[in-house]
Amino acid sequence: MKILLINPNTTQALTDLLDASARSVLPHGVTLDSVTAETGVPYISTRSEAVVGGLSVLEILAEAHCAYDAAIVAAFGDPGLGAARELFDIPVVGLAEAGMLTACMLGGKFSIVTFARALGPWYRECVDWHGLSGRCAGVRMLDGAFRDISDVQGEKADLLVDLANRAVEEDDADVIVLAGAPLSGLAPLVKDRIPVPVVDCAQAAVRQATTLAALRPVGARRGSFARPAPKGSVGLSPALAARIAHEDAL
Amino acid sequence: MKILLINPNTTQALTDLLDASARSVLPHGVTLDSVTAETGVPYISTRSEAVVGGLSVLEILAEAHCAYDAAIVAAFGDPGLGAARELFDIPVVGLAEAGMLTACMLGGKFSIVTFARALGPWYRECVDWHGLSGRCAGVRMLDGAFRDISDVQGEKADLLVDLANRAVEEDDADVIVLAGAPLSGLAPLVKDRIPVPVVDCAQAAVRQATTLAALRPVGARRGSFARPAPKGSVGLSPALAARIAHEDAL
Amino acid sequence: MKILLINPNTTQALTDLLDASARSVLPHGVTLDSVTAETGVPYISTRSEAVVGGLSVLEILAEAHCAYDAAIVAAFGDPGLGAARELFDIPVVGLAEAGMLTACMLGGKFSIVTFARALGPWYRECVDWHGLSGRCAGVRMLDGAFRDISDVQGEKADLLVDLANRAVEEDDADVIVLAGAPLSGLAPLVKDRIPVPVVDCAQAAVRQATTLAALRPVGARRGSFARPAPKGSVGLSPALAARIAHEDAL
Amino acid sequence: MKILLINPNTTQALTDLLDASARSVLPHGVTLDSVTAETGVPYISTRSEAVVGGLSVLEILAEAHCAYDAAIVAAFGDPGLGAARELFDIPVVGLAEAGMLTACMLGGKFSIVTFARALGPWYRECVDWHGLSGRCAGVRMLDGAFRDISDVQGEKADLLVDLANRAVEEDDADVIVLAGAPLSGLAPLVKDRIPVPVVDCAQAAVRQATTLAALRPVGARRGSFARPAPKGSVGLSPALAARIAHEDAL
Amino acid sequence: MKILLINPNTTQALTDLLDASARSVLPHGVTLDSVTAETGVPYISTRSEAVVGGLSVLEILAEAHCAYDAAIVAAFGDPGLGAARELFDIPVVGLAEAGMLTACMLGGKFSIVTFARALGPWYRECVDWHGLSGRCAGVRMLDGAFRDISDVQGEKADLLVDLANRAVEEDDADVIVLAGAPLSGLAPLVKDRIPVPVVDCAQAAVRQATTLAALRPVGARRGSFARPAPKGSVGLSPALAARIAHEDAL
Amino acid sequence: MKILLINPNTTQALTDLLDASARSVLPHGVTLDSVTAETGVPYISTRSEAVVGGLSVLEILAEAHCAYDAAIVAAFGDPGLGAARELFDIPVVGLAEAGMLTACMLGGKFSIVTFARALGPWYRECVDWHGLSGRCAGVRMLDGAFRDISDVQGEKADLLVDLANRAVEEDDADVIVLAGAPLSGLAPLVKDRIPVPVVDCAQAAVRQATTLAALRPVGARRGSFARPAPKGSVGLSPALAARIAHEDAL
Repeated sequence: MKILLINPNTTQALTDLLDASARSVLPHGVTLDSVTAETGVPYISTRSEAVVGGLSVLEILAEAHCAYDAAIVAAFGDPGLGAARELFDIPVVGLAEAGMLTACMLGGKFSIVTFARALGPWYRECVDWHGLSGRCAGVRMLDGAFRDISDVQGEKADLLVDLANRAVEEDDADVIVLAGAPLSGLAPLVKDRIPVPVVDCAQAAVRQATTLAALRPVGARRGSFARPAPKGSVGLSPALAARIAHEDAL
Repeated sequence: MKILLINPNTTQALTDLLDASARSVLPHGVTLDSVTAETGVPYISTRSEAVVGGLSVLEILAEAHCAYDAAIVAAFGDPGLGAARELFDIPVVGLAEAGMLTACMLGGKFSIVTFARALGPWYRECVDWHGLSGRCAGVRMLDGAFRDISDVQGEKADLLVDLANRAVEEDDADVIVLAGAPLSGLAPLVKDRIPVPVVDCAQAAVRQATTLAALRPVGARRGSFARPAPKGSVGLSPALAARIAHEDAL
Repeated sequence: MKILLINPNTTQALTDLLDASARSVLPHGVTLDSVTAETGVPYISTRSEAVVGGLSVLEILAEAHCAYDAAIVAAFGDPGLGAARELFDIPVVGLAEAGMLTACMLGGKFSIVTFARALGPWYRECVDWHGLSGRCAGVRMLDGAFRDISDVQGEKADLLVDLANRAVEEDDADVIVLAGAPLSGLAPLVKDRIPVPVVDCAQAAVRQATTLAALRPVGARRGSFARPAPKGSVGLSPALAARIAHEDAL
Repeated sequence: MKILLINPNTTQALTDLLDASARSVLPHGVTLDSVTAETGVPYISTRSEAVVGGLSVLEILAEAHCAYDAAIVAAFGDPGLGAARELFDIPVVGLAEAGMLTACMLGGKFSIVTFARALGPWYRECVDWHGLSGRCAGVRMLDGAFRDISDVQGEKADLLVDLANRAVEEDDADVIVLAGAPLSGLAPLVKDRIPVPVVDCAQAAVRQATTLAALRPVGARRGSFARPAPKGSVGLSPALAARIAHEDAL
Repeated sequence: MKILLINPNTTQALTDLLDASARSVLPHGVTLDSVTAETGVPYISTRSEAVVGGLSVLEILAEAHCAYDAAIVAAFGDPGLGAARELFDIPVVGLAEAGMLTACMLGGKFSIVTFARALGPWYRECVDWHGLSGRCAGVRMLDGAFRDISDVQGEKADLLVDLANRAVEEDDADVIVLAGAPLSGLAPLVKDRIPVPVVDCAQAAVRQATTLAALRPVGARRGSFARPAPKGSVGLSPALAARIAHEDAL
Repeated sequence: MKILLINPNTTQALTDLLDASARSVLPHGVTLDSVTAETGVPYISTRSEAVVGGLSVLEILAEAHCAYDAAIVAAFGDPGLGAARELFDIPVVGLAEAGMLTACMLGGKFSIVTFARALGPWYRECVDWHGLSGRCAGVRMLDGAFRDISDVQGEKADLLVDLANRAVEEDDADVIVLAGAPLSGLAPLVKDRIPVPVVDCAQAAVRQATTLAALRPVGARRGSFARPAPKGSVGLSPALAARIAHEDAL
């Protein structure tokens, strides 16, 4: 079984964090490949940046999907997830989706804890899109700037633990979801300092991707995620244009 | 007052339909310019095509926003609307948004009536995104293919009237929203054959855009639609990259 | 095009405020007439007072509707709005409805900011009736008495600006709706002191009324807002009794 | 203990039906008085007629409330209920409210079954106002005219039983609420022909009114139903004006 | 008419409190019997304890239901209520259900006030199960231990009054529901110190039970609360096994 | 890693079906043990039977939990799931929960398809309890009796495929969840006859259980699923009584 992790951010160091965390819970016999977007912004944090990242996800999948059994959209906010699920036959899971659904099995309400105020609005729209607002006790964000997106968790670990504890005390969170690619790998390091289960989204995502692949679902030929009819296009990457035109190999 | 209508589809004939319908209710003293996307698909109907169209909207606005008092994202489904609203200072309104909110003032529940089954899932996500599911009596779609996207309304007018009447009878719709750029201009032609108010989205959108410009709101400096902090990028159009980097003129 | 603004409060000075604010954004070629209720209370602030005001709105419309292309129920809370929409053929828009729906096009969530605690419960019921609770970040009210209902905005402007800023900071409001007829005209004066768009409801209402009239919708002959069947009555004003009995001119 | 049943319709025969049904389950030691509105329409079925009926309820209560321990607004749709609850100190319960809340204790979802299509929209708004939409399996209405509002149940009993059975079969109703003053007294006659519990609203209302009186709650001095501050008025009945002005005896 | 009050807690002193409070509002001609669970925990406060209590309720009803016209599940949280309603023919009402639905007739939103933090999660699930979350302003719980479950109200009355007042001030509660069997009888003692109506759940429950019995509903033969088909079982009490097997007398 | 599958039904043949299906996707290195309830009914289908089954789950876990890394409540409807999650430290996942959450990653809305009408009400309550009603397109049930609970899938496979196809066509289901322990193992056999992904709940549950165990969450010491304080009890199994009293080994 082969899993593709797609980092829609252009920062390789974030891909490394995601890959390492996912790899720590990779089941026996599963191969994981991780790729970094070549187009876009270093770190997606808003709706407009997510539009850019969503297109990168589609372009990467158009090139690579045939070689994999499942894929991960590895930015919390899940840019392009619905589009990818509709356009490709393999299961595709989002970082936020996997983290939140896994959290649902560990308690009643989860809180999302992240490192920058700018992320809140996009994350809230993501929770709504997944229909999980009723399970979400809140989105908590750190104030203040950070030095380096690839070392946020080193710089902010103590503040994030405090924030998670406030979510437990004040928002009645049963579970904490540490959100955002830069926090990948942090949950196992701090879980003893937070009195409820803590979910690492990269770990959750790779496990959920392998589960979906293991169930070997037949792709949707009907329903809202059936592959769209073929269509011409202008200005897209060759692989994506071919996929949209039904002129790709598959 | 100058309004920019952005057609995220690449079909000029659709732009012409949108422009003509909008122009029929243009208030005295307002100028309307309509542009067609150069990148993307002839007609957006799904989530993946909307990702492509959303980026086109941002690129067009990055070039042109300084010259306008308000803009319209002129595809039902409103691709890139939230992103545009966050990234630019002028009011931006969506074709679906304007049609649905205008419908809300004409009755309790509106039904969305459109010409192709493929549009349903994307339209439903659009209704949800706007928080208007409680006001929507349903989305009704014609089955069957159409010959030419630029003459759908000529070919399908009778079937659409029948569908609208079924929405009134079976779904208890108080108002009909004729949805999709290809249906622009149809509402005035068929409104006497449907026993509830019928909304033309291009008309609604241009009036709402002029209203927003007339109110002269100060752009958001706080809240979830405040302009994101500057950020570098790779591979975007120069104007969009400059806007994201805060290196544009404004 | 002729628009009728109905103030269901009995205070002429409030009518003057509403009229002046609406007139400041009146499109070229539109005539605005404003009338004051002769029955009721000086300023409606509760459910029971709204019952009284709702009947005044129906009586005024029964007398005047034939001469107008659209009408405005000019009290936030929209007393009698659904009843008026059902009973008369011209479009009728509410002050709250117009303010809230316009706010929806300027951001994700709006907060309602008003000048007296008594208004909260009625306003919240109004938000619910319009199905907009999911878009409303909260209702904020000033504590304390005011000297003169016709000069509330002069007396309380600074406090209202503070309250609006708290709604932005604490409730994550993207837009502020200044609510209540006495605040008409305040938004343009204070918008630079509030970091998100601020909506003046009288401005929004007159623009929305002209938009509805411009779309020239056919009145509802089916659906929940179709005109009720004729019925006798006892004790109503002659014009309203005639309208209910289908014995009026139209 | 004395209970006042207020029929906001002007038809005495409906008052007689309501009174007889309520009296059939009147607890020992409770006195019931029933009054008919002198202003309004013979039978309220729409939003506009409910505005008229709501004011009648307030006027009747302003005259009579001091002599009673609790009151019933005896039209399904509960015109003026919130207003009455806010303006007077004794418990006031609505016919719809009592029927629906009682139904909640007999099953999961109730269906509302009534005799005329015109009633649907108003009844649905009533369900929403009470926050009970999640418990309501649907509103079913008979098509077709009726001969005499005071003998609807005689004329339509078989059709109503059929409609109730369809609500059970097709809408998964656990309980049937026979709605509308003209159906008072019908439930006991037909309950053996419907395979789920059937609620008579007049019975439910008089029992709920006696229960509220028995609990002897202190009236609200805070919260959204506290009595409004005193206010002048023009054109209201003397008793209602006095109550609004805090110039009544109590 | 005979009513059975079932205390699913094993503490007789709680049964005595419930019985005394209910008896204080018992209508003329109604007999009340109160029984205490023989299996389970002294005081149910969590989901797992409610599973145990739910089975006790079924066992007690299986023994006794034939002799009664209606029954009360007398623990806030209503353990086994849905199960009992489905399995037996007489009306069964829950302590929480009765308290909350009665509160709905006294105001818009109620707050639940109780004496121990452990109760919150279970109570919130109970509110959700009844579909009343939209009517609930919050659940407020005292911190800190208590000395004796049968004298909580003596020990904590002042703190509970304070908590109720905070619910009114901070949560905008229109009504207070004093929740938990140990608080039975407290409402009448403290209602003058709280500025909104206060509901005693034992009083509400016995009145609602008598109302349901008075309406003499036919038991459900269809719908989600129809009696399940007969089934064998292992390890249940003889009466419950017989009831499930349809081998009981009725 | 060791997983415990608990069948709360007393039928060993169902345990065999569940075990076989789960084992077909068991990751390398994971041990699965499956146990059958000794108390209760052959097959749980209603709320009252679920109360009985819920207690069996707690008793089995009280005996066995120390020897396992995670557990599965293997009846759709998840009897006792919340109670088990609160009372024990290892992750516990429900058959319905796992099936539904896994389905969420394969499409927008899932439909639940099952073999007997009696199951509907309990399943719907289960969907609500998990907060997933917004993701559920409907619950579809076969009419008619079945011969043998342990061979339902053999007898009804074709009818279930038809029902699933109707859910896709008429309810717009994106994913089918085949629900109920007796259908374990059916999904892989019929998935090519249904045009959307089909989820086998036993497969989903065992994979989700292993994922939760792999994430090695710290048990909840706060929040609504923290272990309840110690309490005495009467009449419970020794192991469960000890667990509730905090007198067990752990």
